[in-house]
Amino acid sequence: MSGSEVVATYLVESYLPLADAAEVIAGEQSTGTFVAVARETAELRSQFAARVLSVEELPPTGHGDLPGVIRPPGARRSSGRVRIAFGVQNFGPSLPNLLAAVAGNLFELRQLAGIRLLDLELPSEFAARYPGPRFGVSGTRDLMGRPDGVLLGTIVKPSIGLPVEELRLVVRELAEAGIDFIKDDELVGNPPHSRLADRVAVVIEELDKVAARTGRRPMYAFNITDDLDRMAANHDLVRAAGGSCVMACVNLVGLAGLAWLRERCDLPIHGHRAMTGVFTRAHGLGIDFVAWSKLARLAGADHLHTNGLSNKFYETDDEVLRSITAVRQPLFGGYQTLPVLSSGQWAGLAPQTYRRTGTTDLLVLAGGGIHGHPDGSGAGVTAMRTAWRCAVEGGDLDAWAQAEPALRRAIETFGAGRG
Amino acid sequence: MSGSEVVATYLVESYLPLADAAEVIAGEQSTGTFVAVARETAELRSQFAARVLSVEELPPTGHGDLPGVIRPPGARRSSGRVRIAFGVQNFGPSLPNLLAAVAGNLFELRQLAGIRLLDLELPSEFAARYPGPRFGVSGTRDLMGRPDGVLLGTIVKPSIGLPVEELRLVVRELAEAGIDFIKDDELVGNPPHSRLADRVAVVIEELDKVAARTGRRPMYAFNITDDLDRMAANHDLVRAAGGSCVMACVNLVGLAGLAWLRERCDLPIHGHRAMTGVFTRAHGLGIDFVAWSKLARLAGADHLHTNGLSNKFYETDDEVLRSITAVRQPLFGGYQTLPVLSSGQWAGLAPQTYRRTGTTDLLVLAGGGIHGHPDGSGAGVTAMRTAWRCAVEGGDLDAWAQAEPALRRAIETFGAGRG
Repeated sequence: MSGSEVVATYLVESYLPLADAAEVIAGEQSTGTFVAVARETAELRSQFAARVLSVEELPPTGHGDLPGVIRPPGARRSSGRVRIAFGVQNFGPSLPNLLAAVAGNLFELRQLAGIRLLDLELPSEFAARYPGPRFGVSGTRDLMGRPDGVLLGTIVKPSIGLPVEELRLVVRELAEAGIDFIKDDELVGNPPHSRLADRVAVVIEELDKVAARTGRRPMYAFNITDDLDRMAANHDLVRAAGGSCVMACVNLVGLAGLAWLRERCDLPIHGHRAMTGVFTRAHGLGIDFVAWSKLARLAGADHLHTNGLSNKFYETDDEVLRSITAVRQPLFGGYQTLPVLSSGQWAGLAPQTYRRTGTTDLLVLAGGGIHGHPDGSGAGVTAMRTAWRCAVEGGDLDAWAQAEPALRRAIETFGAGRG
Repeated sequence: MSGSEVVATYLVESYLPLADAAEVIAGEQSTGTFVAVARETAELRSQFAARVLSVEELPPTGHGDLPGVIRPPGARRSSGRVRIAFGVQNFGPSLPNLLAAVAGNLFELRQLAGIRLLDLELPSEFAARYPGPRFGVSGTRDLMGRPDGVLLGTIVKPSIGLPVEELRLVVRELAEAGIDFIKDDELVGNPPHSRLADRVAVVIEELDKVAARTGRRPMYAFNITDDLDRMAANHDLVRAAGGSCVMACVNLVGLAGLAWLRERCDLPIHGHRAMTGVFTRAHGLGIDFVAWSKLARLAGADHLHTNGLSNKFYETDDEVLRSITAVRQPLFGGYQTLPVLSSGQWAGLAPQTYRRTGTTDLLVLAGGGIHGHPDGSGAGVTAMRTAWRCAVEGGDLDAWAQAEPALRRAIETFGAGRG
């Protein structure tokens, strides 16, 4: 093979020797077919075949077998990390065509008892083709007027059904509380009871009013997820009204849909991860968040949901930390994406989140942790910001709580079982 | 809830009582949140909450638990079929916004040991919004000039790396052999070594030449999968050159990308299923082909890959038959999509395929079974067409093979272990 390559890393599990299983993947996903065909010359293979770079056996995973696996009597099951190189010439620097090679039919191969795409190394042709996030961390900070410190946000609740005039009150309260960021729930797109145009009108009006009084204007991520032409029109509506962020559910509009949006988008794209679990949660099957997030960043996500520590969903803290690290890792030496920590977040999680991530370049979203604060959203925001200052300065949270009633009350309310 | 509803059917596995697990899903995917929030009134819930319609316990599945599941000591694991109704008013008739509700965060819920979307019932609002397949079975037959009988096709092999001038020879041979349909491999989009424009030029020239001699012009599905604007341009290129079909990898351009293509596409869309395994293959997690294929048809797929009987991939014949049935089932009383049977197909599979599907409204693709016929592709096509005539007339394949050398040779070559 000549020229640039994409290197895909897989977890491969098989009853074949791992090297053979790796060759099956490389063959299926490039020049191979199951019977000899005319014109598949040695020269063609040497030029276009995917190459197995390395096979590293791992200890048994304990994963169950995928259905349909070929399991010869007596064969040993092995698991390993396999790296395969694909020539960029095979597909060109195109996200959808790349996926056909590195994440296409291979999931259906009977030779595999487990198959998971762990990571992708992409050559510079992809950076030349895809501009990546336009705003990233620094652009988002600029728009929020928050040059340092953690970025605090929340999700409008209830998830669905809130009348637009009540949304106005929620936004007013949150904006006055000094929050940096508010977002629509991913369940609210452009439904009849809460038209995007109506939401945009009241939200922007409220943000402007609060900004006139306080000098601070939170970023609001309007969920523009929809069929693509409508999504683009939704974006235009938000931009024309003076909005500063749009939210797209990456999997629901597709990576190609996100890249398409990026080309016509003038605002930061808040990338929601709804539906990610369908390809991340199985043992031994799927696409790891690390690989997926790289593709989403390539496609233009300025913010990307990673979940937060102690979240209510299935991932462990170690997995969440791995996701945060992956999103923060420089891509092509430049692409910046802001990790979004959400689900079950509240003030008390600040010390361990800061200790384990080592950064305040995080957008931490608290739903209940802010809306549910007994003294109101304003106190919820104050509690979180105090806790993050304490975390960064290396203070003792309980000591700081003595000096800040909002934090003390947050700990009393949400801190059961903390430790 | 008032108005139309979408009904989603799930396989749910949990250590909670199934009814409770079902309520967690309904709550998470509509009005619910994990702490009480202001403004989540009883009235709001009664109007917007998703409703659990039925919970049907099933025998133990033997599936392993999904990671992160909550498993209280001593709790019984149960599995069941759960139907949940979502008001269309919650999201409007929009494919991406529908997915947020029926296939969003729920895959990450810790209350679930298994969660799989099995099927969707969609109300007529979706038919009003999405025109569905433009050509379907009858439109495809018209364009192929093949009003009845099975439709026979093949995939250009080698998968990748074939020089365009060799593609010319392959197409000439296949077209002269009387095949109905030829397609690009899903791995070949628009790579530098085989530009789509170049492929279109030589393929159309060859098809026209053969049509002038024989009166028959096979349909050729050019793989136009790419970033969306390029995909649209690829379609325009194919159409302008006189092509009669385009292929799109549904998962790689996304359902929203497919629906977007449908709006600007004048040719049948051959829907490839690359990457489907990532959400179909796990035990107890994912989206079933039945539900996914409905969405792909809604988005406009005229043809949809189901795999074929005895295929080389992981699915059983029963699963493949269920997929074929699902694709053929009328949607909104009209949408027609042609099932595409591929992988390991050859003449000898005709009798059982016909017996078990009961139809010739199938596009059967044979790669090796045609290219690999010892007497050439023409003999491969003749063998398959003869076998299908035999199947429809209820004949004995071996007897028919005595009268047709191409079929006899196919059985000798590919029939090892047949029975």
